[in-house]
Amino acid sequence: MDIVIIGSGNVATHLSQALFAQKHVIKQVYSRSLANANDLAQKVGAEPINNFKELLSDAELYIISVKDDAIQYVVKSMPDLKGIVTHTAGSIGLEVLDKFSNSGVFYPFQTFTKHSDVDFSQVPVLIESNNNAHTTLLMDLARQISEHVIEASSKQRGDLHIAAVFACNFVNHMYRLAEETLNDSGLSFELLKPLIAETANKVKQLSPSQTQTGPASRNDQQIISKHINALLDKPEHHEVYQLLTNSILKRI
Amino acid sequence: MDIVIIGSGNVATHLSQALFAQKHVIKQVYSRSLANANDLAQKVGAEPINNFKELLSDAELYIISVKDDAIQYVVKSMPDLKGIVTHTAGSIGLEVLDKFSNSGVFYPFQTFTKHSDVDFSQVPVLIESNNNAHTTLLMDLARQISEHVIEASSKQRGDLHIAAVFACNFVNHMYRLAEETLNDSGLSFELLKPLIAETANKVKQLSPSQTQTGPASRNDQQIISKHINALLDKPEHHEVYQLLTNSILKRI
Repeated sequence: MDIVIIGSGNVATHLSQALFAQKHVIKQVYSRSLANANDLAQKVGAEPINNFKELLSDAELYIISVKDDAIQYVVKSMPDLKGIVTHTAGSIGLEVLDKFSNSGVFYPFQTFTKHSDVDFSQVPVLIESNNNAHTTLLMDLARQISEHVIEASSKQRGDLHIAAVFACNFVNHMYRLAEETLNDSGLSFELLKPLIAETANKVKQLSPSQTQTGPASRNDQQIISKHINALLDKPEHHEVYQLLTNSILKRI
Repeated sequence: MDIVIIGSGNVATHLSQALFAQKHVIKQVYSRSLANANDLAQKVGAEPINNFKELLSDAELYIISVKDDAIQYVVKSMPDLKGIVTHTAGSIGLEVLDKFSNSGVFYPFQTFTKHSDVDFSQVPVLIESNNNAHTTLLMDLARQISEHVIEASSKQRGDLHIAAVFACNFVNHMYRLAEETLNDSGLSFELLKPLIAETANKVKQLSPSQTQTGPASRNDQQIISKHINALLDKPEHHEVYQLLTNSILKRI
Protein backbone atom coordinates (compact mmCIF):
# COMPACT_ATOMS: atom_id res chain seq x y z
CA MET A 1 0.00 0.00 0.00
CA ASP A 2 0.95 3.64 -0.43
CA ILE A 3 1.08 5.02 3.07
CA VAL A 4 1.55 8.46 4.64
CA ILE A 5 2.74 8.66 8.23
CA ILE A 6 1.75 11.70 10.27
CA GLY A 7 4.01 11.90 13.30
CA SER A 8 7.61 10.94 14.02
CA GLY A 9 7.51 9.71 17.62
CA ASN A 10 8.08 6.25 19.04
CA VAL A 11 4.93 4.60 17.69
CA ALA A 12 5.25 6.26 14.29
CA THR A 13 8.87 5.12 14.07
CA HIS A 14 8.37 1.48 15.06
CA LEU A 15 5.18 1.08 13.03
CA SER A 16 6.44 2.66 9.84
CA GLN A 17 9.64 0.62 9.99
CA ALA A 18 7.60 -2.59 10.38
CA LEU A 19 5.41 -1.65 7.39
CA PHE A 20 8.43 -0.62 5.32
CA ALA A 21 10.02 -3.99 6.07
CA GLN A 22 6.94 -5.63 4.51
CA LYS A 23 7.55 -3.72 1.25
CA HIS A 24 4.83 -1.14 1.76
CA VAL A 25 5.67 2.26 0.34
CA ILE A 26 5.90 5.00 2.89
CA LYS A 27 5.32 8.00 0.65
CA GLN A 28 5.61 10.82 3.19
CA VAL A 29 6.41 11.43 6.82
CA TYR A 30 4.88 14.57 8.33
CA SER A 31 6.15 16.22 11.50
CA ARG A 32 5.85 19.80 12.76
CA SER A 33 9.63 19.66 12.94
CA LEU A 34 11.17 19.05 9.53
CA ALA A 35 14.29 17.66 11.21
CA ASN A 36 12.21 15.01 12.99
CA ALA A 37 10.26 14.25 9.83
CA ASN A 38 13.55 13.85 8.02
CA ASP A 39 15.04 11.50 10.65
CA LEU A 40 12.22 9.01 10.21
CA ALA A 41 11.72 9.62 6.48
CA GLN A 42 15.33 8.63 5.80
CA LYS A 43 14.82 5.28 7.54
CA VAL A 44 11.78 4.36 5.43
CA GLY A 45 12.61 6.01 2.09
CA ALA A 46 9.91 8.66 2.40
CA GLU A 47 9.59 12.36 1.65
CA PRO A 48 9.73 14.46 4.82
CA ILE A 49 7.17 17.29 5.10
CA ASN A 50 6.19 19.74 7.82
CA ASN A 51 3.27 21.46 6.11
CA PHE A 52 -0.12 19.85 5.46
CA LYS A 53 -0.39 21.77 2.16
CA GLU A 54 2.22 19.35 0.82
CA LEU A 55 0.27 16.29 1.94
CA LEU A 56 -0.34 13.78 -0.86
CA SER A 57 -4.05 13.52 -1.63
CA ASP A 58 -3.98 10.07 -3.24
CA ALA A 59 -2.35 7.79 -0.65
CA GLU A 60 -4.35 4.67 0.21
CA LEU A 61 -3.70 4.91 3.95
CA TYR A 62 -2.89 7.76 6.31
CA ILE A 63 -1.68 6.87 9.79
CA ILE A 64 -1.91 9.65 12.37
CA SER A 65 0.50 8.75 15.13
CA VAL A 66 0.93 11.84 17.27
CA LYS A 67 0.37 12.62 20.96
CA ASP A 68 -3.22 11.72 21.86
CA ASP A 69 -4.21 15.29 22.66
CA ALA A 70 -2.80 16.55 19.36
CA ILE A 71 -4.91 14.27 17.15
CA GLN A 72 -7.91 16.61 17.02
CA TYR A 73 -5.73 19.54 15.90
CA VAL A 74 -3.98 17.46 13.26
CA VAL A 75 -7.37 16.34 11.93
CA LYS A 76 -8.52 19.98 11.65
CA SER A 77 -5.39 20.83 9.68
CA MET A 78 -5.81 17.97 7.22
CA PRO A 79 -7.76 18.30 3.96
CA ASP A 80 -10.58 15.92 3.07
CA LEU A 81 -9.08 12.71 1.75
CA LYS A 82 -10.33 9.67 -0.11
CA GLY A 83 -7.91 7.21 1.44
CA ILE A 84 -8.44 5.54 4.80
CA VAL A 85 -7.40 7.85 7.61
CA THR A 86 -6.43 6.05 10.83
CA HIS A 87 -5.00 6.90 14.20
CA THR A 88 -2.96 4.73 16.57
CA ALA A 89 -4.29 5.87 19.95
CA GLY A 90 -5.76 3.58 22.59
CA SER A 91 -7.97 6.09 24.34
CA ILE A 92 -9.25 8.14 21.41
CA GLY A 93 -12.49 7.01 19.78
CA LEU A 94 -12.96 6.45 16.08
CA GLU A 95 -15.26 9.51 15.98
CA VAL A 96 -12.37 11.97 16.13
CA LEU A 97 -11.91 11.02 12.46
CA ASP A 98 -15.57 11.61 11.47
CA LYS A 99 -14.71 14.29 8.94
CA PHE A 100 -13.10 11.64 6.74
CA SER A 101 -15.40 9.32 4.80
CA ASN A 102 -13.06 6.37 5.46
CA SER A 103 -11.73 6.15 8.98
CA GLY A 104 -10.11 3.53 11.14
CA VAL A 105 -7.92 2.76 14.11
CA PHE A 106 -4.67 0.84 14.05
CA TYR A 107 -3.61 0.52 17.69
CA PRO A 108 -0.35 -1.32 18.30
CA PHE A 109 -0.56 -2.30 21.95
CA GLN A 110 2.97 -2.07 23.26
CA THR A 111 5.28 0.37 24.99
CA PHE A 112 7.67 1.87 22.51
CA THR A 113 10.91 3.62 23.39
CA LYS A 114 12.94 5.07 20.55
CA HIS A 115 16.21 3.36 21.34
CA SER A 116 14.78 0.00 22.38
CA ASP A 117 14.01 -2.49 19.60
CA VAL A 118 10.64 -4.23 19.57
CA ASP A 119 9.70 -7.48 17.84
CA PHE A 120 6.59 -6.16 16.15
CA SER A 121 5.35 -9.67 15.34
CA GLN A 122 4.59 -10.08 19.05
CA VAL A 123 2.78 -6.76 19.42
CA PRO A 124 -1.03 -7.11 19.58
CA VAL A 125 -2.74 -4.77 17.11
CA LEU A 126 -6.34 -3.67 17.69
CA ILE A 127 -8.33 -2.67 14.63
CA GLU A 128 -11.53 -0.67 14.20
CA SER A 129 -13.08 0.99 11.18
CA ASN A 130 -16.30 2.67 10.03
CA ASN A 131 -16.61 0.21 7.15
CA ASN A 132 -16.51 -3.59 7.22
CA ALA A 133 -14.43 -3.90 4.08
CA HIS A 134 -11.83 -1.55 5.53
CA THR A 135 -11.83 -3.43 8.82
CA THR A 136 -10.85 -6.53 6.85
CA LEU A 137 -8.26 -4.60 4.88
CA LEU A 138 -6.69 -3.10 8.02
CA MET A 139 -6.71 -6.47 9.79
CA ASP A 140 -4.98 -8.09 6.81
CA LEU A 141 -2.39 -5.32 6.82
CA ALA A 142 -1.85 -5.70 10.57
CA ARG A 143 -1.42 -9.48 10.18
CA GLN A 144 1.54 -8.86 7.90
CA ILE A 145 3.44 -7.30 10.77
CA SER A 146 1.87 -8.92 13.86
CA GLU A 147 0.75 -12.38 14.94
CA HIS A 148 -1.88 -10.96 17.30
CA VAL A 149 -4.54 -8.93 15.51
CA ILE A 150 -8.04 -8.42 16.90
CA GLU A 151 -11.00 -6.22 16.13
CA ALA A 152 -11.98 -4.06 19.11
CA SER A 153 -14.45 -1.26 19.74
CA SER A 154 -13.41 2.19 20.94
CA LYS A 155 -14.73 1.28 24.42
CA GLN A 156 -12.68 -1.93 24.55
CA ARG A 157 -9.61 -0.10 23.32
CA GLY A 158 -10.08 2.51 26.04
CA ASP A 159 -10.35 -0.16 28.73
CA LEU A 160 -7.25 -1.89 27.38
CA HIS A 161 -5.38 1.39 27.48
CA ILE A 162 -6.33 1.88 31.14
CA ALA A 163 -5.17 -1.67 31.87
CA ALA A 164 -1.91 -0.83 30.12
CA VAL A 165 -1.39 2.22 32.31
CA PHE A 166 -1.50 -0.13 35.30
CA ALA A 167 0.50 -3.00 33.78
CA CYS A 168 3.16 -0.88 32.11
CA ASN A 169 3.29 2.81 33.06
CA PHE A 170 2.60 2.31 36.75
CA VAL A 171 4.79 -0.79 36.83
CA ASN A 172 7.67 1.26 35.45
CA HIS A 173 6.97 3.89 38.08
CA MET A 174 7.21 1.18 40.75
CA TYR A 175 10.66 0.32 39.35
CA ARG A 176 11.55 3.99 39.70
CA LEU A 177 10.33 4.25 43.31
CA ALA A 178 12.36 1.10 44.05
CA GLU A 179 15.45 2.65 42.47
CA GLU A 180 14.96 5.80 44.56
CA THR A 181 14.63 3.66 47.71
CA LEU A 182 18.01 2.07 47.00
CA ASN A 183 19.76 5.32 46.14
CA ASP A 184 20.42 6.28 49.75
CA SER A 185 21.57 2.87 50.91
CA GLY A 186 24.51 2.34 48.61
CA LEU A 187 22.92 -0.60 46.83
CA SER A 188 22.69 -0.91 43.08
CA PHE A 189 19.50 -1.13 41.00
CA GLU A 190 21.27 -4.11 39.38
CA LEU A 191 20.29 -6.21 42.40
CA LEU A 192 16.62 -5.78 41.49
CA LYS A 193 16.94 -6.99 37.92
CA PRO A 194 16.55 -10.74 38.49
CA LEU A 195 13.54 -9.99 40.70
CA ILE A 196 11.97 -7.73 38.08
CA ALA A 197 12.49 -10.34 35.38
CA GLU A 198 11.05 -13.15 37.50
CA THR A 199 8.05 -11.06 38.58
CA ALA A 200 7.15 -10.48 34.93
CA ASN A 201 8.01 -14.07 34.01
CA LYS A 202 5.65 -15.64 36.53
CA VAL A 203 2.51 -14.07 35.06
CA LYS A 204 3.23 -15.68 31.70
CA GLN A 205 1.76 -18.91 33.10
CA LEU A 206 -0.13 -17.92 36.24
CA SER A 207 -2.75 -15.30 37.07
CA PRO A 208 -1.52 -12.28 39.07
CA SER A 209 -3.83 -13.38 41.87
CA GLN A 210 -1.77 -16.59 42.13
CA THR A 211 1.63 -14.93 41.99
CA GLN A 212 1.17 -12.24 44.63
CA THR A 213 3.89 -12.43 47.30
CA GLY A 214 5.21 -10.05 49.95
CA PRO A 215 4.30 -8.72 53.40
CA ALA A 216 0.78 -7.55 52.47
CA SER A 217 -0.18 -10.85 50.85
CA ARG A 218 0.94 -12.63 54.04
CA ASN A 219 -0.74 -9.95 56.19
CA ASP A 220 2.63 -9.58 57.92
CA GLN A 221 1.83 -6.50 60.02
CA GLN A 222 5.22 -6.49 61.71
CA ILE A 223 7.08 -5.99 58.42
CA ILE A 224 4.47 -3.61 57.05
CA SER A 225 4.89 -1.36 60.13
CA LYS A 226 8.66 -1.55 59.86
CA HIS A 227 8.57 -0.52 56.20
CA ILE A 228 6.06 2.26 56.81
CA ASN A 229 8.21 3.66 59.62
CA ALA A 230 11.32 3.45 57.45
CA LEU A 231 9.55 5.50 54.78
CA LEU A 232 8.44 8.31 57.09
CA ASP A 233 11.10 10.61 55.64
CA LYS A 234 9.90 9.86 52.10
CA PRO A 235 6.25 11.01 52.22
CA GLU A 236 5.48 10.07 48.66
CA HIS A 237 6.90 6.54 48.88
CA HIS A 238 5.13 6.26 52.22
CA GLU A 239 1.75 7.17 50.74
CA VAL A 240 2.12 4.78 47.79
CA TYR A 241 3.27 1.98 50.12
CA GLN A 242 0.27 2.52 52.37
CA LEU A 243 -2.35 2.66 49.61
CA LEU A 244 -1.06 -0.35 47.66
CA THR A 245 -0.58 -2.41 50.81
CA ASN A 246 -4.21 -1.76 51.76
CA SER A 247 -5.31 -2.62 48.24
CA ILE A 248 -3.50 -5.99 48.45
CA LEU A 249 -4.82 -6.65 51.97
CA LYS A 250 -8.40 -6.25 50.68
CA ARG A 251 -7.85 -9.18 48.34
CA ILE A 252 -6.39 -11.78 50.68
CA MET B 1 27.93 -29.08 55.26
CA ASP B 2 25.39 -30.70 57.54
CA ILE B 3 22.37 -28.43 57.38
CA VAL B 4 19.02 -28.26 59.18
CA ILE B 5 16.18 -26.37 57.50
CA ILE B 6 13.51 -24.82 59.71
CA GLY B 7 10.49 -24.05 57.58
CA SER B 8 8.90 -25.62 54.53
CA GLY B 9 7.61 -22.63 52.54
CA ASN B 10 8.70 -21.25 49.20
CA VAL B 11 12.10 -19.92 50.24
CA ALA B 12 12.89 -23.01 52.36
CA THR B 13 11.97 -25.24 49.43
CA HIS B 14 13.96 -23.49 46.72
CA LEU B 15 16.98 -22.86 48.94
CA SER B 16 17.25 -26.37 50.36
CA GLN B 17 16.88 -27.88 46.90
CA ALA B 18 19.69 -25.66 45.60
CA LEU B 19 21.96 -26.67 48.53
CA PHE B 20 21.03 -30.35 48.15
CA ALA B 21 21.95 -30.16 44.46
CA GLN B 22 25.45 -29.01 45.56
CA LYS B 23 25.87 -32.20 47.63
CA HIS B 24 25.25 -30.60 50.99
CA VAL B 25 23.52 -32.87 53.48
CA ILE B 26 20.11 -31.65 54.59
CA LYS B 27 19.81 -33.55 57.86
CA GLN B 28 16.36 -32.39 58.98
CA VAL B 29 13.42 -30.31 57.81
CA TYR B 30 11.29 -28.83 60.59
CA SER B 31 7.74 -27.60 60.09
CA ARG B 32 4.86 -27.18 62.55
CA SER B 33 2.98 -29.42 60.14
CA LEU B 34 4.62 -32.84 59.84
CA ALA B 35 2.98 -33.29 56.44
CA ASN B 36 4.65 -30.11 55.15
CA ALA B 37 7.97 -31.09 56.72
CA ASN B 38 7.67 -34.44 55.02
CA ASP B 39 6.90 -32.97 51.59
CA LEU B 40 10.13 -31.02 51.55
CA ALA B 41 12.20 -33.59 53.47
CA GLN B 42 11.45 -36.19 50.78
CA LYS B 43 12.82 -33.91 48.06
CA VAL B 44 16.13 -33.37 49.84
CA GLY B 45 16.65 -36.70 51.60
CA ALA B 46 16.10 -35.28 55.08
CA GLU B 47 14.35 -36.39 58.26
CA PRO B 48 11.06 -34.52 58.75
CA ILE B 49 10.34 -33.23 62.27
CA ASN B 50 7.66 -31.06 63.84
CA ASN B 51 9.03 -30.82 67.38
CA PHE B 52 12.09 -28.82 68.40
CA LYS B 53 12.95 -31.48 71.00
CA GLU B 54 14.00 -33.67 68.09
CA LEU B 55 16.26 -30.98 66.61
CA LEU B 56 19.81 -32.21 65.98
CA SER B 57 22.26 -30.36 68.21
CA ASP B 58 25.37 -30.90 66.10
CA ALA B 59 24.49 -29.59 62.64
CA GLU B 60 26.95 -27.05 61.22
CA LEU B 61 24.27 -24.73 59.86
CA TYR B 62 20.64 -24.05 60.77
CA ILE B 63 18.57 -22.04 58.31
CA ILE B 64 15.38 -20.54 59.71
CA SER B 65 13.13 -19.82 56.75
CA VAL B 66 9.68 -19.12 58.13
CA LYS B 67 7.26 -16.17 57.89
CA ASP B 68 9.08 -13.04 59.08
CA ASP B 69 6.81 -12.52 62.06
CA ALA B 70 7.28 -16.13 63.19
CA ILE B 71 11.08 -15.96 63.45
CA GLN B 72 11.14 -14.61 67.01
CA TYR B 73 8.85 -17.42 68.23
CA VAL B 74 10.88 -20.09 66.46
CA VAL B 75 14.05 -18.69 68.05
CA LYS B 76 12.47 -18.90 71.53
CA SER B 77 11.55 -22.52 70.93
CA MET B 78 15.02 -23.52 69.81
CA PRO B 79 17.71 -24.75 72.22
CA ASP B 80 21.14 -23.16 72.40
CA LEU B 81 23.22 -24.46 69.53
CA LYS B 82 26.89 -24.46 68.60
CA GLY B 83 26.36 -24.36 64.85
CA ILE B 84 25.70 -21.19 62.86
CA VAL B 85 22.03 -20.21 63.08
CA THR B 86 20.81 -18.07 60.19
CA HIS B 87 17.56 -16.65 58.91
CA THR B 88 16.55 -15.76 55.36
CA ALA B 89 14.48 -12.61 55.95
CA GLY B 90 15.10 -9.26 54.29
CA SER B 91 13.57 -7.04 56.93
CA ILE B 92 14.61 -8.81 60.13
CA GLY B 93 17.88 -7.74 61.73
CA LEU B 94 20.66 -10.08 62.73
CA GLU B 95 19.91 -9.29 66.40
CA VAL B 96 16.82 -11.50 66.45
CA LEU B 97 19.37 -14.35 66.62
CA ASP B 98 21.36 -12.86 69.53
CA LYS B 99 20.74 -15.84 71.80
CA PHE B 100 22.94 -17.98 69.57
CA SER B 101 26.69 -17.51 69.80
CA ASN B 102 27.04 -17.95 66.03
CA SER B 103 24.43 -16.11 63.98
CA GLY B 104 24.04 -15.02 60.41
CA VAL B 105 21.69 -14.04 57.62
CA PHE B 106 21.36 -15.79 54.28
CA TYR B 107 18.90 -13.68 52.29
CA PRO B 108 18.11 -14.94 48.79
CA PHE B 109 16.69 -11.90 47.06
CA GLN B 110 14.03 -13.20 44.72
CA THR B 111 10.31 -13.86 44.61
CA PHE B 112 9.65 -17.56 45.08
CA THR B 113 6.43 -19.31 44.20
CA LYS B 114 6.21 -23.01 44.95
CA HIS B 115 5.20 -24.15 41.50
CA SER B 116 7.43 -21.79 39.54
CA ASP B 117 11.04 -22.88 38.99
CA VAL B 118 13.82 -20.42 39.71
CA ASP B 119 17.39 -20.46 38.40
CA PHE B 120 19.07 -19.99 41.76
CA SER B 121 22.41 -19.11 40.12
CA GLN B 122 20.84 -15.78 39.11
CA VAL B 123 19.39 -15.02 42.55
CA PRO B 124 21.39 -12.40 44.49
CA VAL B 125 22.21 -13.61 48.00
CA LEU B 126 22.92 -11.11 50.79
CA ILE B 127 25.08 -12.32 53.66
CA GLU B 128 25.62 -10.99 57.17
CA SER B 129 27.11 -12.60 60.27
CA ASN B 130 28.30 -11.72 63.79
CA ASN B 131 31.73 -13.17 63.03
CA ASN B 132 34.07 -12.42 60.13
CA ALA B 133 35.10 -16.03 59.63
CA HIS B 134 31.46 -17.08 59.39
CA THR B 135 30.71 -14.26 56.98
CA THR B 136 33.39 -15.72 54.72
CA LEU B 137 32.05 -19.23 55.21
CA LEU B 138 28.46 -18.19 54.41
CA MET B 139 29.58 -16.20 51.37
CA ASP B 140 31.53 -19.20 50.09
CA LEU B 141 28.47 -21.40 50.59
CA ALA B 142 26.23 -18.87 48.83
CA ARG B 143 28.65 -18.68 45.89
CA GLN B 144 28.16 -22.39 45.28
CA ILE B 145 24.51 -21.76 44.42
CA SER B 146 24.49 -18.15 43.22
CA GLU B 147 26.62 -15.94 40.96
CA HIS B 148 25.61 -12.79 42.85
CA VAL B 149 26.70 -12.82 46.48
CA ILE B 150 27.26 -9.67 48.50
CA GLU B 151 27.77 -8.79 52.13
CA ALA B 152 25.11 -6.38 53.39
CA SER B 153 24.16 -4.87 56.73
CA SER B 154 20.73 -5.35 58.30
CA LYS B 155 19.91 -1.73 57.34
CA GLN B 156 20.87 -2.31 53.71
CA ARG B 157 18.91 -5.54 53.61
CA GLY B 158 15.86 -3.75 54.99
CA ASP B 159 16.11 -1.03 52.34
CA LEU B 160 16.49 -3.67 49.64
CA HIS B 161 13.40 -5.43 50.93
CA ILE B 162 11.39 -2.21 50.72
CA ALA B 163 12.66 -1.70 47.17
CA ALA B 164 11.55 -5.26 46.41
CA VAL B 165 8.05 -4.56 47.68
CA PHE B 166 7.83 -1.80 45.08
CA ALA B 167 9.59 -3.63 42.23
CA CYS B 168 7.91 -7.00 42.75
CA ASN B 169 4.93 -7.12 45.12
CA PHE B 170 3.40 -3.81 44.02
CA VAL B 171 4.26 -4.54 40.40
CA ASN B 172 2.36 -7.82 40.64
CA HIS B 173 -0.54 -5.94 42.19
CA MET B 174 -0.51 -3.55 39.21
CA TYR B 175 -0.84 -6.62 36.97
CA ARG B 176 -3.82 -7.66 39.04
CA LEU B 177 -5.52 -4.26 38.86
CA ALA B 178 -4.96 -4.36 35.10
CA GLU B 179 -6.53 -7.81 34.90
CA GLU B 180 -9.53 -6.58 36.88
CA THR B 181 -9.86 -3.61 34.52
CA LEU B 182 -10.10 -5.98 31.55
CA ASN B 183 -12.52 -8.39 33.21
CA ASP B 184 -15.59 -6.30 32.42
CA SER B 185 -14.68 -5.49 28.85
CA GLY B 186 -14.42 -8.99 27.41
CA LEU B 187 -10.71 -8.70 26.71
CA SER B 188 -8.16 -11.28 27.78
CA PHE B 189 -5.23 -10.75 30.14
CA GLU B 190 -3.23 -12.49 27.38
CA LEU B 191 -3.21 -9.20 25.48
CA LEU B 192 -1.14 -7.61 28.25
CA LYS B 193 1.58 -10.23 28.27
CA PRO B 194 3.82 -8.81 25.54
CA LEU B 195 3.52 -5.39 27.19
CA ILE B 196 4.40 -6.78 30.60
CA ALA B 197 7.42 -8.60 29.18
CA GLU B 198 8.66 -5.55 27.30
CA THR B 199 8.17 -3.24 30.30
CA ALA B 200 10.40 -5.52 32.39
CA ASN B 201 12.82 -6.02 29.49
CA LYS B 202 13.47 -2.32 28.93
CA VAL B 203 14.89 -1.72 32.41
CA LYS B 204 17.56 -4.36 31.82
CA GLN B 205 19.50 -1.73 29.85
CA LEU B 206 17.94 1.60 30.75
CA SER B 207 17.08 3.36 34.00
CA PRO B 208 13.36 3.46 34.90
CA SER B 209 13.54 7.25 34.59
CA GLN B 210 14.42 6.78 30.91
CA THR B 211 11.75 4.16 30.16
CA GLN B 212 8.70 5.89 31.62
CA THR B 213 5.91 6.18 29.04
CA GLY B 214 2.17 6.82 29.21
CA PRO B 215 -0.27 9.70 29.68
CA ALA B 216 1.25 11.03 32.92
CA SER B 217 4.80 11.08 31.55
CA ARG B 218 3.48 13.09 28.57
CA ASN B 219 1.32 15.25 30.88
CA ASP B 220 -1.58 14.31 28.62
CA GLN B 221 -4.39 15.77 30.74
CA GLN B 222 -7.07 14.86 28.21
CA ILE B 223 -6.36 11.12 28.51
CA ILE B 224 -5.78 11.30 32.25
CA SER B 225 -9.24 12.88 32.71
CA LYS B 226 -10.81 10.30 30.42
CA HIS B 227 -9.27 7.43 32.39
CA ILE B 228 -10.17 8.92 35.75
CA ASN B 229 -13.78 9.36 34.63
CA ALA B 230 -13.90 5.81 33.29
CA LEU B 231 -12.74 4.53 36.70
CA LEU B 232 -15.37 6.41 38.74
CA ASP B 233 -17.28 3.16 39.34
CA LYS B 234 -14.11 1.44 40.60
CA PRO B 235 -13.12 3.63 43.56
CA GLU B 236 -10.01 1.66 44.41
CA HIS B 237 -8.61 1.61 40.87
CA HIS B 238 -9.55 5.28 40.69
CA GLU B 239 -7.57 6.17 43.82
CA VAL B 240 -4.49 4.21 42.73
CA TYR B 241 -4.64 5.77 39.25
CA GLN B 242 -4.86 9.26 40.72
CA LEU B 243 -2.01 8.84 43.23
CA LEU B 244 0.43 7.18 40.85
CA THR B 245 -0.36 9.63 38.06
CA ASN B 246 0.44 12.52 40.40
CA SER B 247 3.63 10.77 41.49
CA ILE B 248 4.76 10.45 37.85
CA LEU B 249 3.73 14.05 37.06
CA LYS B 250 6.01 15.30 39.87
CA ARG B 251 8.99 13.78 38.11
CA ILE B 252 8.55 15.11 34.55
